[in-house]
Amino acid sequence: MSIVLGANQYGKAEVRLVRVVRAGGRHDLRDLNVSVTLAGDLAATHLTGDNTVVLPTDSQKNTVYAFARAHGVDGIEEFGLRLARHFVASQPAIDTATVHIEEYGWQRLGPHSFQRAGGEVRTATVTCTDGRTEVEAGLTGLVLLNSTDSEFHGYVKDPYTTLPETNDRILATAVDARWHYRGDNLDWEDSYGAARAGLVDAFVGTYSLSLQQTLYAMGHRVLTDRPEITEVRLSLPNKHHLLVDLTPFGLDNPNEVFVATDRPYGLIEGTVRRADDGTVDPADGGRH
Amino acid sequence: MSIVLGANQYGKAEVRLVRVVRAGGRHDLRDLNVSVTLAGDLAATHLTGDNTVVLPTDSQKNTVYAFARAHGVDGIEEFGLRLARHFVASQPAIDTATVHIEEYGWQRLGPHSFQRAGGEVRTATVTCTDGRTEVEAGLTGLVLLNSTDSEFHGYVKDPYTTLPETNDRILATAVDARWHYRGDNLDWEDSYGAARAGLVDAFVGTYSLSLQQTLYAMGHRVLTDRPEITEVRLSLPNKHHLLVDLTPFGLDNPNEVFVATDRPYGLIEGTVRRADDGTVDPADGGRH
Amino acid sequence: MSIVLGANQYGKAEVRLVRVVRAGGRHDLRDLNVSVTLAGDLAATHLTGDNTVVLPTDSQKNTVYAFARAHGVDGIEEFGLRLARHFVASQPAIDTATVHIEEYGWQRLGPHSFQRAGGEVRTATVTCTDGRTEVEAGLTGLVLLNSTDSEFHGYVKDPYTTLPETNDRILATAVDARWHYRGDNLDWEDSYGAARAGLVDAFVGTYSLSLQQTLYAMGHRVLTDRPEITEVRLSLPNKHHLLVDLTPFGLDNPNEVFVATDRPYGLIEGTVRRADDGTVDPADGGRH
Amino acid sequence: MSIVLGANQYGKAEVRLVRVVRAGGRHDLRDLNVSVTLAGDLAATHLTGDNTVVLPTDSQKNTVYAFARAHGVDGIEEFGLRLARHFVASQPAIDTATVHIEEYGWQRLGPHSFQRAGGEVRTATVTCTDGRTEVEAGLTGLVLLNSTDSEFHGYVKDPYTTLPETNDRILATAVDARWHYRGDNLDWEDSYGAARAGLVDAFVGTYSLSLQQTLYAMGHRVLTDRPEITEVRLSLPNKHHLLVDLTPFGLDNPNEVFVATDRPYGLIEGTVRRADDGTVDPADGGRH
Repeated sequence: MSIVLGANQYGKAEVRLVRVVRAGGRHDLRDLNVSVTLAGDLAATHLTGDNTVVLPTDSQKNTVYAFARAHGVDGIEEFGLRLARHFVASQPAIDTATVHIEEYGWQRLGPHSFQRAGGEVRTATVTCTDGRTEVEAGLTGLVLLNSTDSEFHGYVKDPYTTLPETNDRILATAVDARWHYRGDNLDWEDSYGAARAGLVDAFVGTYSLSLQQTLYAMGHRVLTDRPEITEVRLSLPNKHHLLVDLTPFGLDNPNEVFVATDRPYGLIEGTVRRADDGTVDPADGGRH
Repeated sequence: MSIVLGANQYGKAEVRLVRVVRAGGRHDLRDLNVSVTLAGDLAATHLTGDNTVVLPTDSQKNTVYAFARAHGVDGIEEFGLRLARHFVASQPAIDTATVHIEEYGWQRLGPHSFQRAGGEVRTATVTCTDGRTEVEAGLTGLVLLNSTDSEFHGYVKDPYTTLPETNDRILATAVDARWHYRGDNLDWEDSYGAARAGLVDAFVGTYSLSLQQTLYAMGHRVLTDRPEITEVRLSLPNKHHLLVDLTPFGLDNPNEVFVATDRPYGLIEGTVRRADDGTVDPADGGRH
Repeated sequence: MSIVLGANQYGKAEVRLVRVVRAGGRHDLRDLNVSVTLAGDLAATHLTGDNTVVLPTDSQKNTVYAFARAHGVDGIEEFGLRLARHFVASQPAIDTATVHIEEYGWQRLGPHSFQRAGGEVRTATVTCTDGRTEVEAGLTGLVLLNSTDSEFHGYVKDPYTTLPETNDRILATAVDARWHYRGDNLDWEDSYGAARAGLVDAFVGTYSLSLQQTLYAMGHRVLTDRPEITEVRLSLPNKHHLLVDLTPFGLDNPNEVFVATDRPYGLIEGTVRRADDGTVDPADGGRH
Repeated sequence: MSIVLGANQYGKAEVRLVRVVRAGGRHDLRDLNVSVTLAGDLAATHLTGDNTVVLPTDSQKNTVYAFARAHGVDGIEEFGLRLARHFVASQPAIDTATVHIEEYGWQRLGPHSFQRAGGEVRTATVTCTDGRTEVEAGLTGLVLLNSTDSEFHGYVKDPYTTLPETNDRILATAVDARWHYRGDNLDWEDSYGAARAGLVDAFVGTYSLSLQQTLYAMGHRVLTDRPEITEVRLSLPNKHHLLVDLTPFGLDNPNEVFVATDRPYGLIEGTVRRADDGTVDPADGGRH
């Protein structure tokens, strides 16, 4: 019963890159956090410390900066594709390169002045393996709230259930979404903008009987609007806003005064996808 | 050489309050984090655990929620004034109440739908003592960046100085500002908006030879624009963006590719105030 | 090309539970953060908002507290097993329950006094599905450092490589480890203590030519020592400590003065497992 | 009514320094986070961007590293004194230098192996101004808990009070303490160790009727034990542990099952000092 090395990978995480494009007096800005992960035939360094095929993570970092200068950063999907292909093509021992990029938004204040846009982060994950590339896009930290048009009732009452049913509550979440593209040569900006708009519109427009229903509506909208997207994965914390009981103080509370709580929180996670996608996921066999 | 109780205070920190105003189908939202601090004749609880004059922090929390229902939250300065005055007026042992409020912004997406606006936080601190009230407003987390029009040279070269002089660098900071009002009955929304705009405009419009120069310009602008403001305190981290040396890779770098670093960072702090303010601060005697 | 619901799950995250056992004047303390996740036939709530089979996450939270009182918390693996089995057994629509628990350590200061032990967190993840249970244990936040006995050289030099080779560096990491048990009826405390000790001893005792080599040695040690463990997964950030160049100040630096950097960092991830484990992972086919 | 520059200062924050002392095969480690702040005649850089007397924050950082090599780091008070005196002595325009140092603890695992000790951080703040030096020491992040011997009752009941009185509750806090030394040439390690022990012992040993009473006992103990300490300032969040109501589930809860809450929290702050200290603080006139 021998002991062996299983799946493994390595890389440089969180390379912070700010790329300025200076078109005369008017500048543009891309602000990225790039993480590179490489996998392949890396047994020797694990078993004996033989680093013959190990490209240092420091070199990976340097590559990110050099490519930003040499090729520019037109978009995070394009930049990720260029980097991932480079590592697989140039390193014989590496069969899979994954480049994950977070982009922080900035709003323009002037020709060369900007304001950081806040908590929302755009993401892309590019995987290059065996000559194939996969592109996934997404976002995190998009906090949305509907102050009405949300109900929750008709659920299981077990011996531990004390939650009152409600036909009017606040529904709030911090959207964490990832979607998968068919192909690697798309108009990424256009697709991203439309997918994001679809998520927001569906959240706003869905009269919700459960956060699961809202989740499904969000994924369904993106797939309906964008044929190039094959699957949407959503992770939605239910950011509870609890109605405060003001009766001890002789006051009513007609859904006006709430406590925003930190922990615990509900966490709703789900995938919405095309049925004929081909990439059958055995894990979700009976659930759709 | 006896041991005595010195300055002391207590209160409830970080009471999270979301206040919805439902005007028919159109809702408004205020999202606050309220901290209350009380001081006065509190020796007994310290010395013997006699809590006769201690208002529980839990009651302070309840007061925040009850006042939000009973009186609404028209603005954080007004809400802070109401709370601070209440605690001093109703608790004989308390001579000073300080209410510090953070407000998180939301952008409207629909009649009752909102998106959290991001990292910037509006603040107010109201102090009520001996019948007097002081109102301070401010903001934190406003991240600004100029990608040019910033130089840094002509500084001291001591034996530990290796920094090269530059006549073109990125200047970026996360503004933490607090300003003090003359009076307690102003149009807070108007003052806040104008003060914030002044800070941003001065940052954008100042050709900077040092972050200190930018700081002073920001404070000066607010005081010039707003007679009701007597003093502006600014704490500006210098969020360094270091030019990457790409010469090992045969590439130049004409101020286009930067590393955004986390630590260490410069920290520039300063006060800009009116000369005839009356509230002479002995601590800054010889420095202006 | 229809749109369907894919894999999905939901639950209550981060239920904070402190359980005191009062054996006369001597108390014991368990401090947990419990997250429950349920999966099964949940299509109705996604598609139509029909919550007939949805157990509210609030009820899941209540169950955690009630079980802590009714059954005690002898260990996080045991507590997780009890909870996971309960949800699958009591909810017909649920076929899989996962309970993830973090435990925060406390050191005893007296019969009923304690000091929080710091950054290291013990974890357990119990999955109950189709009558089978899987138990995984682990830890995060265990920060280890060797100030010598670490080299790094002989690696790939590509056009972007500038890193100097070294035969003496600091090696530091924050261990994130998870290991899988054979069976669900073990002496969990004994296994945990021995696995943790094996990880630490292997880190300390390995003369390292790469962090990968240290990783493999850590996993190998745990599997060698503990037959009940079938697989160890490790995620090891390389917390870089860079030697400061003091030559501009006329000083040498014989591996004595270092900068501890935050970002970027190397990230080394790998699995060490038994060859005849039966659970073949197709993803790591050619890599061992 | 002219506008003038008020109090101002600048410096480099969070210089991360790890200092290894290699005594043959046995190493010692100091892990510091150093922040330098300088004040003086800095009007020119604010008003016109004239940096003639500005020592770059980058040079301050270099000084920290060079001094660590040239002089070693025997203790954070000593290291802070050396740095603060250097800046005032070498920079004519600077009249005040403040050096704040955080030290992260490591436990020894072997001759050159260490484990990070956790959340508790030791601090020192040295101020050098006009030839005088002030040394303050402290700690943060020391989390203590008594699971009994804490009561809270007899407090004010106002119209917003709903808190039930209790004669047995959990008392928990994260100690943030700073104390001031008489003199600048002490056995810092001895003083620190004794002060810390006094804080812990007083927390453990005090039968508490309010967190204020515990605070005062902690400060009083340190001053009683250590004549070289003139004042202790404590900031103690009341980390609430709320008893869970299990009656809906047919269970009692005799102080055994608690929710550890994050927000809001009580915050108790106070100073304990010697009466004849000479440094009269007008702010706390009537409160002791």
